[in-house]
Amino acid sequence: MTTTTVRTQVGIVGAGPAGLWLAHLLAVAGIDSVVLERRSRVEIAATHRAGILEQGTVDLMAALGLDARMRAEGYAHHGIELRVAGEARRVDFADLVGRAVQLYPQQEVFSDLADGAAARGLDVRFEVADVAVHDLTSQAPSITFTDADGTPARLVCDFVAGCDGSRGIAKWAIPENVRTDHFREYPFGWFGILVEAPPSAPELIYAASDHGFALISQRTATTQRMYFQCDPTDRPDNWDDARIWDQLEACTAAPGFALTRGPIVDKTVIPMRSYVCEPMQHGRLFLAGDAGHTVPPTGAKGMNLAAGDVAVLARSLERFYRDGQHDLLDAYSATALARVWKAQHFSWWMTSMLHTHPGASTFDRRRQLGELDLVTTSRAGSTYLAEAYTGWPLIPTRPGFLDPDTALGAALASQLPAEAVTA
Amino acid sequence: MTTTTVRTQVGIVGAGPAGLWLAHLLAVAGIDSVVLERRSRVEIAATHRAGILEQGTVDLMAALGLDARMRAEGYAHHGIELRVAGEARRVDFADLVGRAVQLYPQQEVFSDLADGAAARGLDVRFEVADVAVHDLTSQAPSITFTDADGTPARLVCDFVAGCDGSRGIAKWAIPENVRTDHFREYPFGWFGILVEAPPSAPELIYAASDHGFALISQRTATTQRMYFQCDPTDRPDNWDDARIWDQLEACTAAPGFALTRGPIVDKTVIPMRSYVCEPMQHGRLFLAGDAGHTVPPTGAKGMNLAAGDVAVLARSLERFYRDGQHDLLDAYSATALARVWKAQHFSWWMTSMLHTHPGASTFDRRRQLGELDLVTTSRAGSTYLAEAYTGWPLIPTRPGFLDPDTALGAALASQLPAEAVTA
Repeated sequence: MTTTTVRTQVGIVGAGPAGLWLAHLLAVAGIDSVVLERRSRVEIAATHRAGILEQGTVDLMAALGLDARMRAEGYAHHGIELRVAGEARRVDFADLVGRAVQLYPQQEVFSDLADGAAARGLDVRFEVADVAVHDLTSQAPSITFTDADGTPARLVCDFVAGCDGSRGIAKWAIPENVRTDHFREYPFGWFGILVEAPPSAPELIYAASDHGFALISQRTATTQRMYFQCDPTDRPDNWDDARIWDQLEACTAAPGFALTRGPIVDKTVIPMRSYVCEPMQHGRLFLAGDAGHTVPPTGAKGMNLAAGDVAVLARSLERFYRDGQHDLLDAYSATALARVWKAQHFSWWMTSMLHTHPGASTFDRRRQLGELDLVTTSRAGSTYLAEAYTGWPLIPTRPGFLDPDTALGAALASQLPAEAVTA
Repeated sequence: MTTTTVRTQVGIVGAGPAGLWLAHLLAVAGIDSVVLERRSRVEIAATHRAGILEQGTVDLMAALGLDARMRAEGYAHHGIELRVAGEARRVDFADLVGRAVQLYPQQEVFSDLADGAAARGLDVRFEVADVAVHDLTSQAPSITFTDADGTPARLVCDFVAGCDGSRGIAKWAIPENVRTDHFREYPFGWFGILVEAPPSAPELIYAASDHGFALISQRTATTQRMYFQCDPTDRPDNWDDARIWDQLEACTAAPGFALTRGPIVDKTVIPMRSYVCEPMQHGRLFLAGDAGHTVPPTGAKGMNLAAGDVAVLARSLERFYRDGQHDLLDAYSATALARVWKAQHFSWWMTSMLHTHPGASTFDRRRQLGELDLVTTSRAGSTYLAEAYTGWPLIPTRPGFLDPDTALGAALASQLPAEAVTA
């Protein structure tokens, strides 16, 4: 069979939020891309994923003109509750940092991005197979794949963006002798359920109890997402409904509080892992999103880290094509990782502070409660937490990082603090 | 030999800062006490101890009229430097929280308190032996001891305050079945030196480096205190001067920075431990200071926790003698421990964030640098740290804890935020 050759500027592996955001941002900058995705659109849209969008990620969707459904069907959350041994300690984002987050599942973000890509005429190819990257340290890298119709194809491009998630192939193209895999596994997992019932609370409840951690989340007016800490090797079948409700009740017990019960329609065990690939670039390959790093879900950072990576990468590629300068591309990994490590710390912190740890001493446990007391009774401590939870700007705020005269610069200007924009 | 019987209201075991502060505060409240101390005054005054006084501890010395020498010979510090991989990140206490700490060695605080006790006519007995506490759950506890002149004596009192430090005997009088010993040992110690040379820096430098943690402190115009992280089983003799300077230089290296060298006149290895005795009371025994808890020195909290304990205890005893109510005495342990656990957390946090940990993964190390980056670049994060370092009020700030009409209430009013005093 003859191999079809396709030519573009940036070949993007993966059509999750990272890949699609990147394709959109490159289009805004006038840069062509082709997105290759192994799964079908239907399969991705049917994969339940959590969804807390930081303020900056919401602003990014708005800048792309893709925020209408998110605002209509999602929920703005102006705070979270930390429940410490049954006592509510609300962290009021609006009061503390004047920002908010948006509850909107990742698969819906994906659908909006995919619809927007079709409307914009972006070249996004689902259900391709046999994706492999080549010649990344040359001037002309390429990606071979089999198109959905079975045609062998070669995508010749200037740059390759690895946006293919935590199980993707892109990062393995960075040779072992230049790559460091920073890895941490936690001694617990999350048992997650989907419940057909109205929300038990208007905002997320992060409950730290002697029975373990639980998270009461929301989804829609008629479905809820809830999680509780479990053994990482536990299996969904080990928990019948009664045992699940008993555990959730034990973890979240508080005066006047009751979980709104309903049919449990999905049960899953989520491992808790942290991973960072360093560097996030090699030759003309650039990793973005879960392809470069994963975080435990406690800090709600996963999707938002992808948004930061691709904002930096899109601006770096614009700089290259518009000004002929590769300074930002050269610095991509360092720039992205500075934000990633802050988020890794925050995710680790929330995880460490809220879970019970197997084998913890009584000192460790009391120290942990002392920390929860300190952070929730100090306005500065609560602000520090709220800043991190609602998120840092997706891009460096230093003057000159953006080109204010371009469409991309205008689209990303919402990421800068007011004083940086007017300066 | 005939046993002398002495009668007082509060028998205090230990004449370190905790015991002497308590005796002073009780005198202000019109309550009699006798202080018993095993060591000689000269021995205590010659024991080199670190000395960072929180703002509230400085205010306490002022309220007792004992702050003149501290202000003349000590140094007000309006910030600290966190040095991260050679880069200075100053935490500006004055700007962030409008407070300061005072550098003034603990043995000088002791001398001022001991001089003040003599001037006030307090009964403080040094060089007593064979101290033992009795009948703590009765209405008439007592302390037997041998006076400095060899006379066997019995101190009959209403209450016993155990202020006899981390190696004291008082806490062992709390039966094992009601006492929980919360303990944590760290996998490193501090190698401390005393150097005859002017200060290397105007403020404390907490240096986090890949070579380990170091603290550059000060003492007087002609002597410096410096520390670096070491193996907890290391011995002073293992380190000659050249090796010590090499290690300190490696940990603190920064552009334009040089340590001011001089003769090393003292070398010591300090273990890093956390301990909390819970409860801090039993019958008519009340623990205060190191007798009830120890912290690693990283947070500079040790002496300041003692000040908090005795302020709460003095007020609780005043409440008992003046109003005939034992509510505050009953709550003493819970009240004191709320502050202690915050300080234990802070001490653990500073220790964990700044030291290199044996066996840490590359993930752990990068996460740690991410945290240092986050806390020093966030104003809220720096404020959270500055609040804790400069210290929380010594007493609960809730309305009604103090009696504003008493001399003790007036003396401790400086501990309350302005709005609580005027309300």
